[in-house]
Amino acid sequence: MTLSHHDGRWPTSGLSYGADYNPEQWSPDVWRDDVRLMQEAGVNMVSLGIFSWGLVEIADGEFSWGWMDEIVDLLEEGGIAIDLATPTAAPPGWLLFEHPEFRPVDHDMQPHWPGARLGWCPSNLVFRSYATRIARAVAERYGDREHVVMWHVGNEFGGGNGRCYCDTSAAAFRRWLREKYGTLDALNEAWASAFWGHTYRDFEHILPPRGHDSKNPSLVLDFDRFSSDELLQHYLAERAVLKEVTPDLPVTTNFMVGAEPDVVDYARWAPHMDVVANDHYTRSPDATPQQDVAFSGDRMRSMTTDRRPWLLMEHSTSGVNWQPRNRAKDPGEMIRNSLSHIAHGADGVMFFQWRASRGGAEQFHSGMVPHAGEDTRVFREVCELGRHLRALAPVQGSRAPQGRVGILFDDEAGWAMTKGVKPNNLLPYGTLVRDWHRAFWRLNVGIDVLPPWNSFAGYEVLVVPALFLVDDDTARRVTEFAEAGGTVVVGVVSGIVDENNQVRLGGYPGAFRDLLGVWSEEVVPLQAGDRFELDNGWGGIEWTEHVRVRDAEVTARYSGGPLDGLPAITSRAVGQGGRAIYVSAAIDPASIGEFVGDLLSSDENPLPDGVELVVRDTDDERFSFVINHSLRDVRVPIAGVELLTGLAVDDILELPAGEVRVIRSSI
Amino acid sequence: MTLSHHDGRWPTSGLSYGADYNPEQWSPDVWRDDVRLMQEAGVNMVSLGIFSWGLVEIADGEFSWGWMDEIVDLLEEGGIAIDLATPTAAPPGWLLFEHPEFRPVDHDMQPHWPGARLGWCPSNLVFRSYATRIARAVAERYGDREHVVMWHVGNEFGGGNGRCYCDTSAAAFRRWLREKYGTLDALNEAWASAFWGHTYRDFEHILPPRGHDSKNPSLVLDFDRFSSDELLQHYLAERAVLKEVTPDLPVTTNFMVGAEPDVVDYARWAPHMDVVANDHYTRSPDATPQQDVAFSGDRMRSMTTDRRPWLLMEHSTSGVNWQPRNRAKDPGEMIRNSLSHIAHGADGVMFFQWRASRGGAEQFHSGMVPHAGEDTRVFREVCELGRHLRALAPVQGSRAPQGRVGILFDDEAGWAMTKGVKPNNLLPYGTLVRDWHRAFWRLNVGIDVLPPWNSFAGYEVLVVPALFLVDDDTARRVTEFAEAGGTVVVGVVSGIVDENNQVRLGGYPGAFRDLLGVWSEEVVPLQAGDRFELDNGWGGIEWTEHVRVRDAEVTARYSGGPLDGLPAITSRAVGQGGRAIYVSAAIDPASIGEFVGDLLSSDENPLPDGVELVVRDTDDERFSFVINHSLRDVRVPIAGVELLTGLAVDDILELPAGEVRVIRSSI
Amino acid sequence: MTLSHHDGRWPTSGLSYGADYNPEQWSPDVWRDDVRLMQEAGVNMVSLGIFSWGLVEIADGEFSWGWMDEIVDLLEEGGIAIDLATPTAAPPGWLLFEHPEFRPVDHDMQPHWPGARLGWCPSNLVFRSYATRIARAVAERYGDREHVVMWHVGNEFGGGNGRCYCDTSAAAFRRWLREKYGTLDALNEAWASAFWGHTYRDFEHILPPRGHDSKNPSLVLDFDRFSSDELLQHYLAERAVLKEVTPDLPVTTNFMVGAEPDVVDYARWAPHMDVVANDHYTRSPDATPQQDVAFSGDRMRSMTTDRRPWLLMEHSTSGVNWQPRNRAKDPGEMIRNSLSHIAHGADGVMFFQWRASRGGAEQFHSGMVPHAGEDTRVFREVCELGRHLRALAPVQGSRAPQGRVGILFDDEAGWAMTKGVKPNNLLPYGTLVRDWHRAFWRLNVGIDVLPPWNSFAGYEVLVVPALFLVDDDTARRVTEFAEAGGTVVVGVVSGIVDENNQVRLGGYPGAFRDLLGVWSEEVVPLQAGDRFELDNGWGGIEWTEHVRVRDAEVTARYSGGPLDGLPAITSRAVGQGGRAIYVSAAIDPASIGEFVGDLLSSDENPLPDGVELVVRDTDDERFSFVINHSLRDVRVPIAGVELLTGLAVDDILELPAGEVRVIRSSI
Repeated sequence: MTLSHHDGRWPTSGLSYGADYNPEQWSPDVWRDDVRLMQEAGVNMVSLGIFSWGLVEIADGEFSWGWMDEIVDLLEEGGIAIDLATPTAAPPGWLLFEHPEFRPVDHDMQPHWPGARLGWCPSNLVFRSYATRIARAVAERYGDREHVVMWHVGNEFGGGNGRCYCDTSAAAFRRWLREKYGTLDALNEAWASAFWGHTYRDFEHILPPRGHDSKNPSLVLDFDRFSSDELLQHYLAERAVLKEVTPDLPVTTNFMVGAEPDVVDYARWAPHMDVVANDHYTRSPDATPQQDVAFSGDRMRSMTTDRRPWLLMEHSTSGVNWQPRNRAKDPGEMIRNSLSHIAHGADGVMFFQWRASRGGAEQFHSGMVPHAGEDTRVFREVCELGRHLRALAPVQGSRAPQGRVGILFDDEAGWAMTKGVKPNNLLPYGTLVRDWHRAFWRLNVGIDVLPPWNSFAGYEVLVVPALFLVDDDTARRVTEFAEAGGTVVVGVVSGIVDENNQVRLGGYPGAFRDLLGVWSEEVVPLQAGDRFELDNGWGGIEWTEHVRVRDAEVTARYSGGPLDGLPAITSRAVGQGGRAIYVSAAIDPASIGEFVGDLLSSDENPLPDGVELVVRDTDDERFSFVINHSLRDVRVPIAGVELLTGLAVDDILELPAGEVRVIRSSI
Repeated sequence: MTLSHHDGRWPTSGLSYGADYNPEQWSPDVWRDDVRLMQEAGVNMVSLGIFSWGLVEIADGEFSWGWMDEIVDLLEEGGIAIDLATPTAAPPGWLLFEHPEFRPVDHDMQPHWPGARLGWCPSNLVFRSYATRIARAVAERYGDREHVVMWHVGNEFGGGNGRCYCDTSAAAFRRWLREKYGTLDALNEAWASAFWGHTYRDFEHILPPRGHDSKNPSLVLDFDRFSSDELLQHYLAERAVLKEVTPDLPVTTNFMVGAEPDVVDYARWAPHMDVVANDHYTRSPDATPQQDVAFSGDRMRSMTTDRRPWLLMEHSTSGVNWQPRNRAKDPGEMIRNSLSHIAHGADGVMFFQWRASRGGAEQFHSGMVPHAGEDTRVFREVCELGRHLRALAPVQGSRAPQGRVGILFDDEAGWAMTKGVKPNNLLPYGTLVRDWHRAFWRLNVGIDVLPPWNSFAGYEVLVVPALFLVDDDTARRVTEFAEAGGTVVVGVVSGIVDENNQVRLGGYPGAFRDLLGVWSEEVVPLQAGDRFELDNGWGGIEWTEHVRVRDAEVTARYSGGPLDGLPAITSRAVGQGGRAIYVSAAIDPASIGEFVGDLLSSDENPLPDGVELVVRDTDDERFSFVINHSLRDVRVPIAGVELLTGLAVDDILELPAGEVRVIRSSI
Repeated sequence: MTLSHHDGRWPTSGLSYGADYNPEQWSPDVWRDDVRLMQEAGVNMVSLGIFSWGLVEIADGEFSWGWMDEIVDLLEEGGIAIDLATPTAAPPGWLLFEHPEFRPVDHDMQPHWPGARLGWCPSNLVFRSYATRIARAVAERYGDREHVVMWHVGNEFGGGNGRCYCDTSAAAFRRWLREKYGTLDALNEAWASAFWGHTYRDFEHILPPRGHDSKNPSLVLDFDRFSSDELLQHYLAERAVLKEVTPDLPVTTNFMVGAEPDVVDYARWAPHMDVVANDHYTRSPDATPQQDVAFSGDRMRSMTTDRRPWLLMEHSTSGVNWQPRNRAKDPGEMIRNSLSHIAHGADGVMFFQWRASRGGAEQFHSGMVPHAGEDTRVFREVCELGRHLRALAPVQGSRAPQGRVGILFDDEAGWAMTKGVKPNNLLPYGTLVRDWHRAFWRLNVGIDVLPPWNSFAGYEVLVVPALFLVDDDTARRVTEFAEAGGTVVVGVVSGIVDENNQVRLGGYPGAFRDLLGVWSEEVVPLQAGDRFELDNGWGGIEWTEHVRVRDAEVTARYSGGPLDGLPAITSRAVGQGGRAIYVSAAIDPASIGEFVGDLLSSDENPLPDGVELVVRDTDDERFSFVINHSLRDVRVPIAGVELLTGLAVDDILELPAGEVRVIRSSI
């Protein structure tokens, strides 16, 4: 195996394949078996040492490297690359015992007691000095080992310490606010703090949003931003140490990207990652988990301006343990999930974790090697996936072409929408966004789920779903996109507040009112069990609006109810062949499907239901991933060389139920 | 406009119309627009300064009145009267920063962190001194301004600090108990504290009901009483300052009266109000919000012995923000609500708030001027309501005649019933009471919802629903009412405990057993999904009783179930043509409707379904409010001059769907 | 009445009958009435003084015995035996005031505030010294009174202080761990603490599982064990004092045994009880509360190796107050419950409490004397039960013969299964166990619900339902049972972890894999609303497994779903005619019923539906309890003398709906 160091090349040659490797749970005889099985499975990289701090720094400043030296040697002998962790997600017991003030504190001022992970306040600089010391120690000991190919900083930042309300955090919050606003007048203005007489006379009077009572929404949003920034500062502090010791090694940490607002603002973190990496777990009750896989990939890929490949750092071979009822994956599902991540731009798939634990808090989380061992469906599929990934080595470095459709996604908008009190307090950001994504995804249209500050150039359609908070610049750029000939679709709960979380006056959706040529007088939420209907047969629940048309065509009207006969969906011709469509009601997925079908005229023959087609391109080649999520065999018109089987496909691909094929062709 | 000072006259000439006015949220150019729009809408009074403390007392003892001076001038110029607030609901940030001990503490000893409202312990006398100082400052600066017509003390007392469990409150509670009981022996006896061995040996050992465990119900009830009293003491302290500075101005504060037990005991507060004022918000899932409006009015009016007009201090023009899904009001609904409040005795309708906020915690609460501005359904209805209220000026000062029916309502009974553990712990006090009220309300029978210490003279029927706690005097007076010829209807869960929250032994409903001539051996709650039936076809859920008859006629029996064949409803002839009826089962609203229909023989033609008729009288005139809550046009036989249209009605009023008319006639 | 002292004889001559007696709630005139009514009801023993601490130790070390002296005299005069309590469940207010550090602290470090019961930390040795002092004082004052026949130590240990997380408890936990493990290495190994890097370097770093985050499951289980042990140590400390003062008096405390994992490990406590006693309350929504009665009796009886009679220390005459909706017992139900307890091995039935309280936290809990007094269904049934129990005096001392079926039940297994994160986190231990018990119970098969360390000799069938945690010794003994010719049925979620709560590797159910000849690759939980089917028509919800057969017959297979065609139920012939059956899916009660029906071939004619038959034997006599839980009269073939009526039954017992008969016959 040839290892790549950080000259922009991918950490492994070929697609990466592996898992979190926590050998400290097992005895040395198991370690040797691990390497043998990794080789059998085709594993070429593992994330090592994530929870090793307490096992290498056994007392303050006292290190014991023996077991890890041995593991690194074994992995090198086995030809397995190492994505080596700074072990700062799990501080040692002695450190937390000596420094109870490190504990993060929740909004009710209850500390997170030791016993889980990430039990430290992100703003605590004493903790940060311990963390950078261990990061330096690890880097200095192993940074020059040939098989150490990447740094994995901490783990799942914010999972446990995403928001800390302690006094140290409060002081840091005030420093952050001073930097952001400069003056109290500016802060009071941005926060509309005169309401309820909260005008601040001294930065020292400001507290995090502790307790249960209603809070100023602008303060809450700034605390979310601050919290994300503080964790990023911690990451950057560790990264700086690593770069100082090993300037050529790529540095990353694992995001937890899905459709819901994230614990930190990943899109704003991404520029600080040499490789953007994600942990993705499907949800047991999700009716279309395969779409959630696509959604996260469409987000990950769009976080970098060059759309470069990303790394799936964790997913699961089968069931997890932290949901109420943890579904085991169906036969073939893990392979479909994995190759779908590759299709959507990943250049590697890794799992949590290599070997399912005997004990500890995650003992019932599936692994690459199950409790039952090698002679299992799961391990056989793991080996099969390994073979597939080796066959897909040519895919490495290829990139997804830009999609026809861009969907805007913003953590700040999600935070603002889902916190504080609103006309309808039960609207889920992720569902609203995923409903739009699913409709396009079903049509096998290329989709990018992008942050609002990315360029919109090149899209055919730009969807703005539930983008509650929009700044002026975004609003202007969306308008310019339409004026330049694009189609903008604005969904419910969009454009309502500005970047300070203050309502844009004059009618919703304030940021897009002029573009759309309509405005809403009032939002009209529905009660549980109620449903609205439109005059074109569509319908939905939860949200309608009293729309007024200034300059737009009404394409559907409310039928029945308090808004009977009023406009529900409008369309306005804009600029050079552009169009701006307002969907003022939370129409249901079936209605969205019809809407999207009408919107995208296509000459292509549609694929069979349940078949997903995703492409990645190099300069002269195309890799077409054809994924059969359905329970029946299908025939797909396509031509090229199939990489998993090595067979040529002349014009029709015979694709069995549940299987995946990857067709290589010239472009 | 002629302003009235406190010689008993109403604060405005004509009905009051306006809102909370919080101009501190807006820039001065908006203020001028506000006055213009108020005039357009017919606003004649606003509540000013409720959240102004931090904006006028900018540091301890340092005042800055400029902006408020300007507002007062502008309002005076615009002819708008001012209901001026002492701003004590929202202490300044600097004060809460300097005095963290002011924070109210909940039953788990968690403080209410700053950031909302009413963040102060009602028993804290240091806070009280700050509060009375700012009240005095406001009174001295503005009390002699012509347009200042009333004092609005604080805001929604108890909304945030209704129960404080801190050590200061604990000490005050012990003082309150010493005053109430004098001796520990008396307290131990009243509390039955020997149970679980809790007998107190020292007042100092008594704590508020902190924590989650089961508590002595007598202690809990006394803590509720104490908490209401402490907040009242605070109100009275502010009131005393205001009366000292401006002896002639009326003083009030805004209640939050509905059907559920209140945060404080409003009926016991009412005598301390020069004008009794209420905040009323309908609930989104309520199937008959119009009845909730009637219910609150029937309560408000009955809180004063002279049935004098009250003031609706707050309601909403459309949706609020603090419910899970906040229904927007239907077209016309706000006007119907408003005129219904007037019909039920209000001499003014005000809103929270004048202009919907851009920012802050209530940014999505509707206002008189919506986010979308003037050209909106809401603002047009606001103006229409203003015209209606001007047309209704003659109504001012008229009073509702005493109802045929009195329904007893008591916060102490509600508190006692809904706290602690009971045979059925899921019975809602408000629903039980409103079910009875609704049945009479549908028949357009005059109803007073009165505290048990009011006189019962003059009623035809006295309903005692869910009056769990009854003292001996009330029991005696109810009995005397029946003996004097009245009809008493006792509903479930009534008369069970005495004023100490101790069970009246010898069979339920102990307080009314002799009057009713029956007693219950045992209560027999139903499980979820179960239903009982009576032999007359009625039925219901949740509650039945094993009734024994001593001296009464059985008018309905249980049919099926463990009580099959036993008495369910009984009737006893009492004294001079009186009657005492026991309804031992929680019969459903339809059954209550039939019961009430049978009870009230009426010669009058009933009104069409969904039409409410309410009257207010002067010495020689009657104002008949006819409210069409239905979706169809109706014809109502009535004659007089219609005030909103100015047209004469000869014998039949043509009343369109959703509309209201007010007929003036001689009596 | 002849009283028995502790020479192994039962505390009363004849079956015990009575209640908790809390006369401190009532005035002395009531006391005299109490004795009269007790005599009328046939009461022969009461539990006295449970909540008397604050009433006899009125200040630190200052005692006031007057009222209790009087009560003891009155009871002696009335011939009522006394089960005298050490009053340590309810410390006096002055003690808790002086020692706030006694308060137990919950997992969020919130103290249990005074006002309920058991408000003390079990590890607090200063409290223990107060508790043993009052125990000694009570023993010295009343231990030589003739009618004091038993000691009732405290009350419902753990009900309020079952888990204390305070610093005192934390220190005690560390001491307990040092004793258990000796070295940190042993602890780290047993806890798999290397996972998440939690390896301990000092016992002082170990904390109870405070807070909300995920915890190490081995630590959590040890904390459960420690908590049970600490309460047991408290019990033993009081017991030692009592035995020192009155060596001949039996000592007990009341368990709270049902089907759910208990607050403490009762089966491990039982050897320290002279008389094993239980409190049992049926649950209002339970569809078969009569089976819950049988289940608890089958557990109680099997806690002692000699199957000796136990005492029902508390149940209720009718409704309780601590459930959402508290069902009143149907006519006859209390008598059926009571005699069913006797049938299942109790030699006495007692109630909480004698007289329903007027005040205090349990004022709506039913009593032997209801609020409504003597002329009530409840009191008449109380008297009827007293007559029945006198008629059943010959039953005293007889014992249930060993059942055909043994069902394993273990609190440690239940704790391990229901805490921490699992494949399916919503599986209820009690339901899984009761579903198996119910199926055998319906067939009127004798069942013992026994701890895993009891002997299995003599059973025909051994059921292992949801025995998540199994140690090696139990696994070996279960195997030996099958090898010796017994039938073992292993249900879902059994044998998965070892005594350290670590997974047994190599396939589930690890502890029984070899015995069963099968292993599961993976567990496959179902989602809410989903259902699995087997090819024999059975089905169920929540749990299936991917089973692999090594050496067993497949008796049912999955039909449909991801496991279609795979083995679901297997059977393996073992040793000398034995059999080991694995039921890998959570089949529903109907399916279990068919399974059990197939399993137990029986020549006997089945009894009518809803009729329970339970026997107790002496050396030469059999007492057959025939309980008609149904709503119709039935005929049961049986012969002997019926004890309640005194009538001879020749061959057919005519048993009216809802009634109980007890047939005495020779064997």
